[in-house]
Amino acid sequence: MPSGDDAAVVAADALAVTSVDMMVEGVHFELAPGWASPADVGHRALAAALSDIAAMGSRAGEAYIALGLPARVTDDEVLELVDGAGELARRCGVTIAGGDIVAAPALTVCVTAVGWSSREVSPVTRAGARAGDIVGVTGRLGGPAGALELLAAGREPGPELLARLRRPEPRLAAGAAVAAAGAHAMIDVSDGLAADASLLGRASGVRLRIELERLPLLPAAADAAAALGRDGALLAAESGEEFELCICAAAADADAVAGAAADAGGPEVTWIGEVRAGDGGADLAARDGTLVAARGYEHRV
Amino acid sequence: MPSGDDAAVVAADALAVTSVDMMVEGVHFELAPGWASPADVGHRALAAALSDIAAMGSRAGEAYIALGLPARVTDDEVLELVDGAGELARRCGVTIAGGDIVAAPALTVCVTAVGWSSREVSPVTRAGARAGDIVGVTGRLGGPAGALELLAAGREPGPELLARLRRPEPRLAAGAAVAAAGAHAMIDVSDGLAADASLLGRASGVRLRIELERLPLLPAAADAAAALGRDGALLAAESGEEFELCICAAAADADAVAGAAADAGGPEVTWIGEVRAGDGGADLAARDGTLVAARGYEHRV
Repeated sequence: MPSGDDAAVVAADALAVTSVDMMVEGVHFELAPGWASPADVGHRALAAALSDIAAMGSRAGEAYIALGLPARVTDDEVLELVDGAGELARRCGVTIAGGDIVAAPALTVCVTAVGWSSREVSPVTRAGARAGDIVGVTGRLGGPAGALELLAAGREPGPELLARLRRPEPRLAAGAAVAAAGAHAMIDVSDGLAADASLLGRASGVRLRIELERLPLLPAAADAAAALGRDGALLAAESGEEFELCICAAAADADAVAGAAADAGGPEVTWIGEVRAGDGGADLAARDGTLVAARGYEHRV
Repeated sequence: MPSGDDAAVVAADALAVTSVDMMVEGVHFELAPGWASPADVGHRALAAALSDIAAMGSRAGEAYIALGLPARVTDDEVLELVDGAGELARRCGVTIAGGDIVAAPALTVCVTAVGWSSREVSPVTRAGARAGDIVGVTGRLGGPAGALELLAAGREPGPELLARLRRPEPRLAAGAAVAAAGAHAMIDVSDGLAADASLLGRASGVRLRIELERLPLLPAAADAAAALGRDGALLAAESGEEFELCICAAAADADAVAGAAADAGGPEVTWIGEVRAGDGGADLAARDGTLVAARGYEHRV
């Protein structure tokens, strides 16, 4: 993983799009059976940084991985972690081009992901939503929250929910396709759709209105919500550690945007609301039109 | 410091040159009076990453700073740390373009520095040295080792040595100038000249011969060596945490390379040896021609 030289040299496109994510054992994950394997940790750390590149609609190019290693982490565990990141990188066409390895009291993974955009398709920011836009989201929500809330209740989440928690997929192909199809604004919902839609609304100076009943819910997350006596749609809206994309686009472009994501291999885009003039932020509306408050998502293990 | 968006977007030159350095409290530094202030920590972490860009001869562009913060680190200390990095960044024309802030058990600073090269002046690697080249080094060595060894002996290093330890300068201007003047290979001597010259020799498949008596020694480091009963030149060769550059260039280019560094504002280049065919590595030669073994440098606080 460390490059042979002082620094890695790569050919650039017109615009560099760079994101850094640091994850720390005991804060963002536990390296323990039932929580996460070393490979899961490597995958998730890289996925988190790549997800930010996806949300800009850029082509992911390279990743740099810095590891802080406690003495108790074995060489095999380090290799597993790097392999977990490497497998995702290969699948995404990303080169792990460098990094650093140092001693640290807690396992620490800091990933810098670099994406590239040409001048023709500008990166999509979170600040471009306009009143009259429609709001969409990729994929199906609720998996990580379903898994975490079942674990917190001492129950077994089952393999599908655990996979969503441990191996979330950055939506690089869909993000790039949606950007090329003219999306106005994007954000990944890694802090939960409710919180991130609100950030997008504030950055754009508009108000997103999201219809809870239209949220696409992962079936296993719906089952988890039922088992926990929770409202499924609210669980989906609050679910953090998701790397789905929240998209704002002109209503006239709805089919083009959804079609572009489908052509890129998915996941499907579901239209869940609209953008209105108003104070910057987002509202969640129940079926009867009343607004519902969502809990913010905080990292916790 | 965190960008408003998911990722930072910057205009690129032809080649991106990227280096990542992670530093951890208790491993690379102690945040304590007598060791390092928060501003020192910010400065050093950024300087370490920029030094790798300098050693490639590239123009430094942006830095991304991820911080892992224990609860006991105050907001004021965090601001001081960021200001310490920010002051160096401004002086070097570097933009701090993004980063991350998370909780962590030990203060952790992970800096990603990005430099840019045009296609006209390729980045200088450590693999380009050729038999017949001469070997140079920028500045004056021994400051950090002098400070650390005096501290370890329970003695006060004095302000000049402490400044060398706490606020080392990345040699960006000199590195870029030397690259443009045709240097064949470079490396920063952050693990000590002896160790890093050996890395350069191995990467280039040649043997560097460095004349100990020609090493440029910081006067305060010479005093420290005398006070410690140490050979000054060997202390200089072993001194890590230095960000001077070891340079290999064609003998015919000696004046052009040294002149370019001087024109860029320094520091001065001193020619300290030559490159020979042989097993990849480096030798330190005493005045009588005998070879001297140097200790490797290990991070320790």
